[in-house]
Amino acid sequence: MRYLSQIFQPIITIPKNAKIKNTEITCKSQKLLLECGLVRPTGTGFFSILPLARRSIDKLEVLIRKGIESVGAQNITLPTLTPSSLWEKTGRLGSEAELLTVEDRHEKQYLLAPTYEEAVADLLSDVGPISYKQLPLLLYQISNKFRDEHRPKHGLLRAREFAMMDAYGAHATLACAERAYERISEAYRRIFEELQLQVFRVSAPSGVMGGSVSHEWQLPAAPGEDRLCVCLSCHHASTSEGRCVVCGGETESLGSIEVGHTFILGTKYSDPLKAHFIPPSGPAEPLVMSCYGIGITRLLAASLEALSSDKSLRWPRHIAPYSVLVIGPKEGSKEWSAHGVDSIDRLYRRLSEVPGLTNDILVDDRHTLTIGKRLLMGDKMGFPYIIVCGRSTLDNPPKYEVYKSVPHQQSAPVLLNLEELLIMLTDKVECDNLKILENKN
Amino acid sequence: MRYLSQIFQPIITIPKNAKIKNTEITCKSQKLLLECGLVRPTGTGFFSILPLARRSIDKLEVLIRKGIESVGAQNITLPTLTPSSLWEKTGRLGSEAELLTVEDRHEKQYLLAPTYEEAVADLLSDVGPISYKQLPLLLYQISNKFRDEHRPKHGLLRAREFAMMDAYGAHATLACAERAYERISEAYRRIFEELQLQVFRVSAPSGVMGGSVSHEWQLPAAPGEDRLCVCLSCHHASTSEGRCVVCGGETESLGSIEVGHTFILGTKYSDPLKAHFIPPSGPAEPLVMSCYGIGITRLLAASLEALSSDKSLRWPRHIAPYSVLVIGPKEGSKEWSAHGVDSIDRLYRRLSEVPGLTNDILVDDRHTLTIGKRLLMGDKMGFPYIIVCGRSTLDNPPKYEVYKSVPHQQSAPVLLNLEELLIMLTDKVECDNLKILENKN
Repeated sequence: MRYLSQIFQPIITIPKNAKIKNTEITCKSQKLLLECGLVRPTGTGFFSILPLARRSIDKLEVLIRKGIESVGAQNITLPTLTPSSLWEKTGRLGSEAELLTVEDRHEKQYLLAPTYEEAVADLLSDVGPISYKQLPLLLYQISNKFRDEHRPKHGLLRAREFAMMDAYGAHATLACAERAYERISEAYRRIFEELQLQVFRVSAPSGVMGGSVSHEWQLPAAPGEDRLCVCLSCHHASTSEGRCVVCGGETESLGSIEVGHTFILGTKYSDPLKAHFIPPSGPAEPLVMSCYGIGITRLLAASLEALSSDKSLRWPRHIAPYSVLVIGPKEGSKEWSAHGVDSIDRLYRRLSEVPGLTNDILVDDRHTLTIGKRLLMGDKMGFPYIIVCGRSTLDNPPKYEVYKSVPHQQSAPVLLNLEELLIMLTDKVECDNLKILENKN
Repeated sequence: MRYLSQIFQPIITIPKNAKIKNTEITCKSQKLLLECGLVRPTGTGFFSILPLARRSIDKLEVLIRKGIESVGAQNITLPTLTPSSLWEKTGRLGSEAELLTVEDRHEKQYLLAPTYEEAVADLLSDVGPISYKQLPLLLYQISNKFRDEHRPKHGLLRAREFAMMDAYGAHATLACAERAYERISEAYRRIFEELQLQVFRVSAPSGVMGGSVSHEWQLPAAPGEDRLCVCLSCHHASTSEGRCVVCGGETESLGSIEVGHTFILGTKYSDPLKAHFIPPSGPAEPLVMSCYGIGITRLLAASLEALSSDKSLRWPRHIAPYSVLVIGPKEGSKEWSAHGVDSIDRLYRRLSEVPGLTNDILVDDRHTLTIGKRLLMGDKMGFPYIIVCGRSTLDNPPKYEVYKSVPHQQSAPVLLNLEELLIMLTDKVECDNLKILENKN
């Protein structure tokens, strides 16, 4: 049984009517994550991820791993430090203003990698030339990356250290790379679909990454630094305004947040770093590379921006820290005298049997607080289901107040007996959550 | 179905009778991990972890998480970069020669943290003073740490970037800290027991960490830089030679590797960084802190040192990259003609139904290679069970050659029919592996 009272969650209580001027807090995800004790800044653009947010990120990572592994990606871990000499060879060392660099005791320079094209090309060069039979190859990692932003802002949306999934493809030809690119784009779509987020794939310039094809994956949300033009008729999205290029329909301009990026890189990295393969006949050739990123901590914050109200967090259901919060009776109340905490134990055991809910139920055991106060906090935290054991548990059969979270809104309760509650959770949770949890096996 | 041919595993084939002088390879874990395509150096003391080793580390992390969470530890993630100013306050900045430091664009200095006492004390100070009711508090993370070793050596045993679990306790009194320390030491013992490794807890000087109590957790293994004196009668271990201080018996001196370290730190960090708690009465007081580390990549390499022969890897069974390797018939053989690959599919499905084996079976589908050659490589890789579908699958009922890996030895086969094989695997795997995989849920 997981008890809320035991969780390290340094909530910030803001007195009613307090006028707070904190100009560093510029968006609701940052404000709510901080107030709810989920993250804590350690300096400008750096954050400690606290236990409940860590659980949410764990779930998000499992979901992304499942998605990217479904198209054959293999998990590796590259060192955080990339020798600067590799970036010199590809000409990127001078062109990136946001690099953090470090020198070792022998004055050799490394960079705290913001991205790993050079490191992967160097790995493939080191073990190569590899056979065409091993292609296509798709390697990925989830790790912390670094970017010395001039002005870090919006909390986890633009931090200087951030968690990211980055995948790198190696192909024999551009046509092979394009086929893989579309397969991986499909995996991206499935990931965002599971999160119930409407993320648009938008053509983008390749910039300093080089290469021929590039898309940004944009989630519409208010504090976004990007603008997205979505056609009101066919929903085609682009970054340029004007009528829709596909159907000529009118477009709507939205703020949006880039949560992913995909590129076909060509041989920009494999050529200078000599990452070669051996074709069926003829001499070794440079690999055609592609790369794929999803900002994990950014996606978490972006989805909170897209779904939350100003007052209450709302999560994609699969990545809420816990799927269910159970609030027990207040100490000394009639229902407390009638049932005590035993009834919570029994309820917890029954709920735990729902497939997908095992270890995903949190009990708010702060029985000295009123139900109302705990419910307010639970709603602010945005747990997908809140089950209140209040006065109606004295009914025969006992009834529970069940609050199902809805984006942008405060939850309204329904009264259900245990069997009805179990049916509802089984229907909802089994199909939603089970797939993710299964993947952990 | 997982196929070996699809795995990125850049094996190094060394010609027979080749005389190789690579003075950088100084121990067998490094040699075998490299030859088997499991890791790859990217520079002195830096390594890329490739897919099969990544799987092994994933399993090790799950096992360690389970252990440390069983005593109430909560998972957090602190930034890799700690402001140097925090280390100035505790006086450690000048005393550590192996720090890597980095400056941001505003010339603020950070260090790539080798350890997080300051960062955790600062977090507790930032959210504090916390109530005594929240104590004891135990926070942990798994992340990459950095140490600019003068002479990195022995591969993953002494790298400059390494994965580590580090946990930090906060307590009201030294007595509370001591009670928690013993509980966590018990969790350490269970972790090493599950790995079937004989790890000794040895009293140690606290050194630069400060504090009152300190133990090293030492695994006897040949290339160890430490010496361990183990009593031949009572098995008490210490770092000082001479007769055993407990029973007076004779001692044996062994090379050993430090795989973990535990400390009670007192108020060395909480005092200067003002990490305070509010006792039941009276003013706020500094927290009594403790800390606990297990080197994850080091423990992996150390366990390979302890169990492997010079020629073949041997893993603690729970953390082998896959529990079972299935080797199918050679293309064109009698058994190939009789069964083809269909029989492998059927076998795979039956094996997958064994609790704990789902997704943990690898099929060596390189059917153009002889069974002998694939078996040799499988034995070198040290898969706990290797199942060969050779000539005896023509028997009625078909029989499989089953090789069970044994530390330091080459495996010898037994011939089993499918039912016997399933019983053997169910007995062995269910009790061994299931606990770990369950925990992932």
